[in-house]
Amino acid sequence: MTLLYKADPVRGALWAERFAQLAPQIPFRVWPDLGDPAAIRYLVAWQPGDLALTLPNLDVVFSVGAGVDQLDLSQIPAHLPVVRMIEPGIVDGMVEYVTEAVLAIHRDLFDYALQQQARVWQPKPLRAAASRRIGVLGLGMLGTAVLDHLQLFGFACAGWSRSQHRIEGVDCYAGDESLDAFLARTDVLICLLPLTDATRRLLGRRVFDTLPRGASLVHVGRGPQLDSAGLIDALERGQLHSAVLDVTDPEPLPADHPLWAQPRVRITPHIASATRPESAVDAVLENLRLFHAGERMNGQIDRTRGY
Amino acid sequence: MTLLYKADPVRGALWAERFAQLAPQIPFRVWPDLGDPAAIRYLVAWQPGDLALTLPNLDVVFSVGAGVDQLDLSQIPAHLPVVRMIEPGIVDGMVEYVTEAVLAIHRDLFDYALQQQARVWQPKPLRAAASRRIGVLGLGMLGTAVLDHLQLFGFACAGWSRSQHRIEGVDCYAGDESLDAFLARTDVLICLLPLTDATRRLLGRRVFDTLPRGASLVHVGRGPQLDSAGLIDALERGQLHSAVLDVTDPEPLPADHPLWAQPRVRITPHIASATRPESAVDAVLENLRLFHAGERMNGQIDRTRGY
Repeated sequence: MTLLYKADPVRGALWAERFAQLAPQIPFRVWPDLGDPAAIRYLVAWQPGDLALTLPNLDVVFSVGAGVDQLDLSQIPAHLPVVRMIEPGIVDGMVEYVTEAVLAIHRDLFDYALQQQARVWQPKPLRAAASRRIGVLGLGMLGTAVLDHLQLFGFACAGWSRSQHRIEGVDCYAGDESLDAFLARTDVLICLLPLTDATRRLLGRRVFDTLPRGASLVHVGRGPQLDSAGLIDALERGQLHSAVLDVTDPEPLPADHPLWAQPRVRITPHIASATRPESAVDAVLENLRLFHAGERMNGQIDRTRGY
Repeated sequence: MTLLYKADPVRGALWAERFAQLAPQIPFRVWPDLGDPAAIRYLVAWQPGDLALTLPNLDVVFSVGAGVDQLDLSQIPAHLPVVRMIEPGIVDGMVEYVTEAVLAIHRDLFDYALQQQARVWQPKPLRAAASRRIGVLGLGMLGTAVLDHLQLFGFACAGWSRSQHRIEGVDCYAGDESLDAFLARTDVLICLLPLTDATRRLLGRRVFDTLPRGASLVHVGRGPQLDSAGLIDALERGQLHSAVLDVTDPEPLPADHPLWAQPRVRITPHIASATRPESAVDAVLENLRLFHAGERMNGQIDRTRGY
């Protein structure tokens, strides 16, 4: 009944420590030190490769991240449950990152940064948060937490999702037919969608041109959802004012990529949010309890939808 | 029973409009159009100069700002009450600005901005908010509101003030003898002190060197509280990591000032917070009601303390 961890080894040491404390009965191994492959029942991985095909007695595959798009599901036998990471560390980081990005846009900090470069002291009129319309694409755990927090500042909040959601104080839009209406009322668009065939390259000219002129983008979904040439074009046309990008395609972004030098684009290296080892171990242990009780695990994905 | 307004005329037009709606019985004049000086009973001003000495029947002087340090109190007769502006617009703006600044520091955005300039993709380890110690100098209306909001992110919050305060969830330090202990536990220092002789040039080498190495400063008090040469020195020595400055000395900051070009200093042109004309008029009208009822007004200052 061994657990095999295949992801960042520095963080793996923190996982091992907490596992030894809380579940000493489950041997914890860090790839590539497999020991007896037949003993491995649980795999915790960022990118397992074809490992799941080679472990004869595997019961569950856990992603260390909030998404599973980095997993090649075709290399995971169909009978195996696949579980996304749902733990408070991921949520906290995302709420911090997106709140900062929205406030920076709301308070004109891109413009002031350019003024500072030019040594210009020129105040701009203040705008009340209630007149700033925030829109979140994707109303899962992260999108909902972000909206709950942005509401505390008094922003006008809406969200869009494939299926209908209900969030106190938030205008919820659902389905393809309502996407344009959602975009047309959105000054700051936040992407927290999962990566699927339907969302690949979604953030491109058509979406940007449906937003009000001068809107901004906060992209914390997945890199391949963004058409970066379309983004640069929209910025240069003035259709978009600014963009905060925590994800790119590819990652790392190559040094010669034109996004780096855009004056109103901020790039961070996929750090908005990360699994916190302590709470992630707690989440995995709770899911193992559910699994052995025959119940559905938290974050267990629907393999037909892909998330 | 006329009110004279002497401050930014663009905002003055918004004041006039709301006054005409809510208190049509009080004539509203915008300086320099005084009309009959003997009719003027209320003065609303940023810098009144010697106006208060020349208006024979003046009853109250209102500052349009949250502070009164820009007023020359020696030019205001001793019997006249002087009132600071206390209204929700000032609070909202300050909470937005400081929250953004603290999150930007917490999430290493100064470092990522420098990495972006160098086209480097290099994630840094995430730190939990609970391990980041925030300290607010000044526990008035603004300091308290800022702490209330920062607590929602889970930061470790403390505050310092001349007199003892009690704020739920916040370690409150009081008096000169506790200042060093407060500074020694503070990773992100936020200055929201009033400008007095005791706070002039307070933010200098002694304070910076009492903070833990690598601390950051968010200065939203008043420009003359900061020793800018001491700040640059502390940044260059690595004692301070970064600074967010919304106030400088002088303002506007001259184009040749060395602060503009510091790599980990962000400068904004005194825009953190501004009186919102709608709610400011409401605050003045409520204070006039209190004044005529013989009660103490909200924000009425103690002229011996100077704030």
